[in-house]
Amino acid sequence: MAAPTVTTDTICALATPHGVAGLAVVRVSGARAVEACDTFFRGQHGLAGTPGYTIRYGWWVDGTERLDSVTASVYKAPHSYTGEDVIEIGCHGGPFTSQLIIDGLLRVGVRLANPGEFTQRAFINQKLDLTQAEAVADIIHAQSVVGAQTAARQLAGGFTQRIKGLRSRLLDVIGLLELELDFSEEDVEFVDRSRLADLLSELVQEVDHLAASVHSAEILRSGFHVAVVGYPNAGKSSLFNALLQRSRAIVSDVAGTTRDYLQETMYADGYTIHVSDTAGIRLTSDSIELQGISLTRSVIEQSDAILVVNDASVGKGHSDALVEDLQSSFPGHSCLVVQNKVDLVPEGVTPRSDTELACSAQTGVGIGVLRDTLVGLVQSQTVQSTDVLVNARQAALLKQISTSLTSALQALSEGQTPDLLAVDIRGAIRLLGDISGESWNPDVLDTVFSRFCIGK
Amino acid sequence: MAAPTVTTDTICALATPHGVAGLAVVRVSGARAVEACDTFFRGQHGLAGTPGYTIRYGWWVDGTERLDSVTASVYKAPHSYTGEDVIEIGCHGGPFTSQLIIDGLLRVGVRLANPGEFTQRAFINQKLDLTQAEAVADIIHAQSVVGAQTAARQLAGGFTQRIKGLRSRLLDVIGLLELELDFSEEDVEFVDRSRLADLLSELVQEVDHLAASVHSAEILRSGFHVAVVGYPNAGKSSLFNALLQRSRAIVSDVAGTTRDYLQETMYADGYTIHVSDTAGIRLTSDSIELQGISLTRSVIEQSDAILVVNDASVGKGHSDALVEDLQSSFPGHSCLVVQNKVDLVPEGVTPRSDTELACSAQTGVGIGVLRDTLVGLVQSQTVQSTDVLVNARQAALLKQISTSLTSALQALSEGQTPDLLAVDIRGAIRLLGDISGESWNPDVLDTVFSRFCIGK
Repeated sequence: MAAPTVTTDTICALATPHGVAGLAVVRVSGARAVEACDTFFRGQHGLAGTPGYTIRYGWWVDGTERLDSVTASVYKAPHSYTGEDVIEIGCHGGPFTSQLIIDGLLRVGVRLANPGEFTQRAFINQKLDLTQAEAVADIIHAQSVVGAQTAARQLAGGFTQRIKGLRSRLLDVIGLLELELDFSEEDVEFVDRSRLADLLSELVQEVDHLAASVHSAEILRSGFHVAVVGYPNAGKSSLFNALLQRSRAIVSDVAGTTRDYLQETMYADGYTIHVSDTAGIRLTSDSIELQGISLTRSVIEQSDAILVVNDASVGKGHSDALVEDLQSSFPGHSCLVVQNKVDLVPEGVTPRSDTELACSAQTGVGIGVLRDTLVGLVQSQTVQSTDVLVNARQAALLKQISTSLTSALQALSEGQTPDLLAVDIRGAIRLLGDISGESWNPDVLDTVFSRFCIGK
Repeated sequence: MAAPTVTTDTICALATPHGVAGLAVVRVSGARAVEACDTFFRGQHGLAGTPGYTIRYGWWVDGTERLDSVTASVYKAPHSYTGEDVIEIGCHGGPFTSQLIIDGLLRVGVRLANPGEFTQRAFINQKLDLTQAEAVADIIHAQSVVGAQTAARQLAGGFTQRIKGLRSRLLDVIGLLELELDFSEEDVEFVDRSRLADLLSELVQEVDHLAASVHSAEILRSGFHVAVVGYPNAGKSSLFNALLQRSRAIVSDVAGTTRDYLQETMYADGYTIHVSDTAGIRLTSDSIELQGISLTRSVIEQSDAILVVNDASVGKGHSDALVEDLQSSFPGHSCLVVQNKVDLVPEGVTPRSDTELACSAQTGVGIGVLRDTLVGLVQSQTVQSTDVLVNARQAALLKQISTSLTSALQALSEGQTPDLLAVDIRGAIRLLGDISGESWNPDVLDTVFSRFCIGK
């Protein structure tokens, strides 16, 4: 591991959100944390000499002014979140008290923490590896229960174990290859070439699988996007409302934008589903035309699935040309057809395939099934993320690892010498270390921790 | 003290604000707090048997799901905020994790806390008196640093001491009066009547003074309101901007309203000052008319001071008729005259009295003095609140106490018998107990704690 180049002065920040509530917590970390807090803390016991994992109760006194009755939670290095001495001051919520406490600490030489700086110190002091630090940000920012849970599994070491597993298998290989190199003049093969090829293929598959889960992770992190399309009067708005109501949704427009489409968000079974009404499709003369085509295309492109709403009372096949058009334009997208207004079809509507549903926004018939079908779609597209939320940084590294291992496989099939194989495999091992942060540089840390909020 | 009638089941709530941040805290209080949390907490040590004021680190596990790595701060009855067993779960911030923790606790029979219920239990268990509980709400909701600090002094027992002082002096008197009653047939006067009259007068004065500070407290609690009036083109808007900028103000319109006036808020020297532009005064023909008179009147009535902006380049006395009109209509309001646009008056503008200021919004001349003058006005109107923020409930009780004591004084001057005097004084003592909550009923508690947020 590279030597830490990060400053280790004492830092502080509000760790809880701004707002009116019972409790606010100011976090202080660094060698001078205890001393700085003792300038202000007045209790039965001072904080100096207080053992770790202990809470002291007292008043926070600035000069002669009793600012608040507080608790001071004491953590001693290295047994703290950051690995340094940490004091957490629990004071009353509201905008002023925590600010006055921070103002005082700044006056005695404590510095305001940068975003993510507490977690960065935890990483530098080897309390967390880089994938665990990234999991912390994912828990805090998760847009779904399942995302938060997956991030928690990553924090618990899910990713770390995967990386360690891959690494240890590659280390075994490199060990044997290096043994061969030592005995290269004797032309001995310690590693069976076909077993090696199998192993490398397996690893490439596993790494590719992990890299591909970045899409799945993004859905858990930010939500699943559904574009709703359909001809006018197909009943899209009523379907929206019926769906959102059934899901006890928190309905909200995209704030502060002047977009030409509505986006609403529903929470269902722990998933976040953003539903966008593209409202841009018109039948002109006898040809299908996507009005405002570029906006509609861009909404659909950014979506994970398309929901075509058809007015079944006009005819089951009324939107077939549209569906065909969408499927050929967006072959990678799941496409569901909702036969709406079935209450107006006396003989009933039987779906023609398993990507069709019949329902009525008016009576509520079939809305529950539609909701469950959407949840099923999300689950099918997120099944790859079980204990790891792969992010863009990690996916890029995984792709490089895959390339290295594929290159090794290629060298193997060409009967190249062990030293060439070893170069590729060593490269892959180094890249695995980059994922977990065993080797790192300040730029990587900046990228990782810029996603954090202040106070974490 | 009346017997508590409040339920004592185990309660929980998010104690920190909703929002994205490093840390969220779920507070659990009641006899089953430890047991309920131990259902989920997995650490090196369980929570049962953990001594008070100790922090345990571990995972919060629901079923087989590791929800988050958490700290559990353990407080044992009666040494906790509520006086009951309390566990505070520190988890990662964000919308889901704390909610999942609370969901789990509700499943094992913990109930969601009502607003203020933790503090209500603290009161019932005699950890705080009622004035201290009210101070807690004032700290959290304070609109100014000075308000938060005054509330902190009240929490530290400032009001409690004042009430105890008044009470003990009245108890001395009642003791002597009761002695007289025991010996009433012998017609002895243990209490010197003129000393008693002096004492009662003193107490009436002190109680009236305290009751009158409710206005002062309201300013510290919610801010000082200034109504800005003036003829069109007097430069009110530029003056606004100059003033707010100079004060490093957080400028915000009254949110979500369709009022016909602007209100902006500045923070200066720890005070909150709301500045309202009435924008309603026009000169029509040759008479002064307050346009939209009712709205303007109501803005001025709700203000603590009036700021008249005069265009000095038109003439120092240009707004004199308006000022006169305002002073006769609102005799109780402080009225400041700002001679604006002094940069357009080559010979300069000398204020004609100490309620006049000369300044230029354009060049910034005099804006600092205006800001300091406003702060001085707030200070002069809040000087009565130093360690107590009297609220409406307390003011009403103080007025009743004053009435009782005045009635005792009257009885005394009429030479009434000690038993009549004693009735009034006993009434005053009982009312003092109502202020600190020595005697209380559920209605009083509802009134006091309805001001709280959930989680406190």
